[in-house]
Amino acid sequence: MARAAVVGADMTRFGVHDRPMQELFGEAALGALADAGVEPGEVEALYFGNAMGGQTENDTHLGPKVASHVGMAGIPVQRYEDACATSANAFKNAVEAVEGGVHDVVLVGGVERCTPGVGKDTAEMTRIFASASHRQYEQPTGITFPGVFALFTKRHMHEHGTTEEQLAHVAVKNHGNGALNPKAHFGKQTTVEEALEGPIVADPFRLMDCCPFSDGASAVILVSDDLADSFDAPVDVGGVGHATDVVPLADKEVPHVTQAARDAAAQAYEQADTSAGGMDFAEVHDCFTGAEVLASEALGLIEDGQGGFAAAEGRTARDGEIPINPSGGLKAKGHPIGATGTGQLVELTTQLRGDAGERQIDGAERAVAHNLGGDAATTVVTVMEVRG
Amino acid sequence: MARAAVVGADMTRFGVHDRPMQELFGEAALGALADAGVEPGEVEALYFGNAMGGQTENDTHLGPKVASHVGMAGIPVQRYEDACATSANAFKNAVEAVEGGVHDVVLVGGVERCTPGVGKDTAEMTRIFASASHRQYEQPTGITFPGVFALFTKRHMHEHGTTEEQLAHVAVKNHGNGALNPKAHFGKQTTVEEALEGPIVADPFRLMDCCPFSDGASAVILVSDDLADSFDAPVDVGGVGHATDVVPLADKEVPHVTQAARDAAAQAYEQADTSAGGMDFAEVHDCFTGAEVLASEALGLIEDGQGGFAAAEGRTARDGEIPINPSGGLKAKGHPIGATGTGQLVELTTQLRGDAGERQIDGAERAVAHNLGGDAATTVVTVMEVRG
Repeated sequence: MARAAVVGADMTRFGVHDRPMQELFGEAALGALADAGVEPGEVEALYFGNAMGGQTENDTHLGPKVASHVGMAGIPVQRYEDACATSANAFKNAVEAVEGGVHDVVLVGGVERCTPGVGKDTAEMTRIFASASHRQYEQPTGITFPGVFALFTKRHMHEHGTTEEQLAHVAVKNHGNGALNPKAHFGKQTTVEEALEGPIVADPFRLMDCCPFSDGASAVILVSDDLADSFDAPVDVGGVGHATDVVPLADKEVPHVTQAARDAAAQAYEQADTSAGGMDFAEVHDCFTGAEVLASEALGLIEDGQGGFAAAEGRTARDGEIPINPSGGLKAKGHPIGATGTGQLVELTTQLRGDAGERQIDGAERAVAHNLGGDAATTVVTVMEVRG
Repeated sequence: MARAAVVGADMTRFGVHDRPMQELFGEAALGALADAGVEPGEVEALYFGNAMGGQTENDTHLGPKVASHVGMAGIPVQRYEDACATSANAFKNAVEAVEGGVHDVVLVGGVERCTPGVGKDTAEMTRIFASASHRQYEQPTGITFPGVFALFTKRHMHEHGTTEEQLAHVAVKNHGNGALNPKAHFGKQTTVEEALEGPIVADPFRLMDCCPFSDGASAVILVSDDLADSFDAPVDVGGVGHATDVVPLADKEVPHVTQAARDAAAQAYEQADTSAGGMDFAEVHDCFTGAEVLASEALGLIEDGQGGFAAAEGRTARDGEIPINPSGGLKAKGHPIGATGTGQLVELTTQLRGDAGERQIDGAERAVAHNLGGDAATTVVTVMEVRG
């Protein structure tokens, strides 16, 4: 099987920026091009993710705008939106196009502006985020995403005895990792005590259980199998799984198992001819600490029901048996919606090249990224590995 | 070259509906499934287009919602948005996935709600539509899309002597065709005199030069080359071209040539091993009458500069040398943004099967569809033909 490979990767710092989306995206895209040693004129297509530009600042049809901003006017561009799984889905489609022989060199990335620079306050942004829940069956109840993931997590606590203190350990770990990542939104560490004393956002989540609204962009250069060896340090795409689920929480058969993640992971592992045990680390979609617990189990990295215990015992720490979110995760690195998926792939690329500095996972050769959207109703799971 | 084929197609009536988007989409999707004789469980993936649901009714992450509504919960779904070229772009990506061997049976379609059922008045909808123009360089001027296409058309009039009366002939032709299409938004004919007496919307466009805001959905079932012969009346995808351009009108080298359309058409004709002369009819993106004139030239169907004259002389009539918009086009059939692109492909399929009733183009064996987005900055051109 011909495998696409990532040969360039970059991201802006995730955090608060006050620049138009094309400029933010440009920083990441031009950085990825420079990293790969590819000129804009060599890029054949752009697979672009943005989740909310229409709602936040009346800015749609962004594809041609960002393409021309980075010197690629005229190429085919498509914009993807699948809530928080937006740019991982763009990546999946790009991988299929490159592996199918449609293109040899493509740019994949995403951008989002979520902070008050767009002219919206936190309440209004929370309402906009909630557009990804079910319009008819959920939004009228007033539920927003902290509530959605609180309900997932409450069920897990009920079934498995997961505790608030265990959730706090996830936050402590991810803030510790983020403090070593110069691109992270938050550079500060926290403690279990501080996390447990924070104000309640949606029971069982306190402030430190929740990821921030971030601005940012991320991008990777993807090339065909035949071209990959002509680049420095290509990182292979082993597989990309993609599955969905019914949207309403109330319709899910067993909410806390996040079935779409299990289905997508099974596809990705099979494509990569590997299994959860073959992973050296993982970047997962920890929009809330409870989401990391669920993801660690859905990906098969931790036994079902043990995700909270594993975090508290250090099994998912940077020096643990299966490091999770060495970048700091959404929790500390930040969550610029449409940039989050390819942002995870930037971390995979950096780690698998051995370029992650103080947060490097020693000897990492294969890793998995997990990017979900909405009520865990879209999940994309990507396995990447050092080119053999 | 393995060719994907359309084996099922359907659409709602375009017009005014008051049902949620998943129900509108369901009508088209279930119709396409029934037309093909395919069960929902046989569909492997959904390529879905919606342009403005987030802005119009705070409804995003629609992919999993519409998939589960039509009995396909769990399958991979991706939402595309490229302004008015949204669902043609979804189709392009679906064709590449099927021809690349990723999937054998997929559903492609789009939906949009644009009428006051979404709780927005015409002024607010016009502002939302304008989000597809350049946020920094155009929106602050107050320009909206009638103005954008008026400027394209004014330049064409200046260069080539195109007249308002010729534009009126485009409206008369398309309303005449639409009156024969039971799925069209408008069933009424018009006259050159009536068109020329209408109120000015944006000089040179009067009311009858402008397409309506419509609600609607459209869908097709696409299968792999190997499977196509097991279906009744498969219609082959000859080629799909996709190109972009800089967004701002002021940045375009020669605005009225709509370069992206020329680039996309060249790709599509080359893939299909044909040329403009091989087309038996065309569906083009006549959001305004002037846009049809430009498209007829960009696709090579009419000599440059002669688009207006050709319409007035009946060369593009249903019984003319190259019929354009036998469905009624966006002008009379309607324009539910995210459903428009695959709506054109429903017409191509219907005509190429000889099922178009009173508006049938006799002996049609090959046709082209042209779907553009924003300031003509995204264009997708699709060639379809009777399976040989």
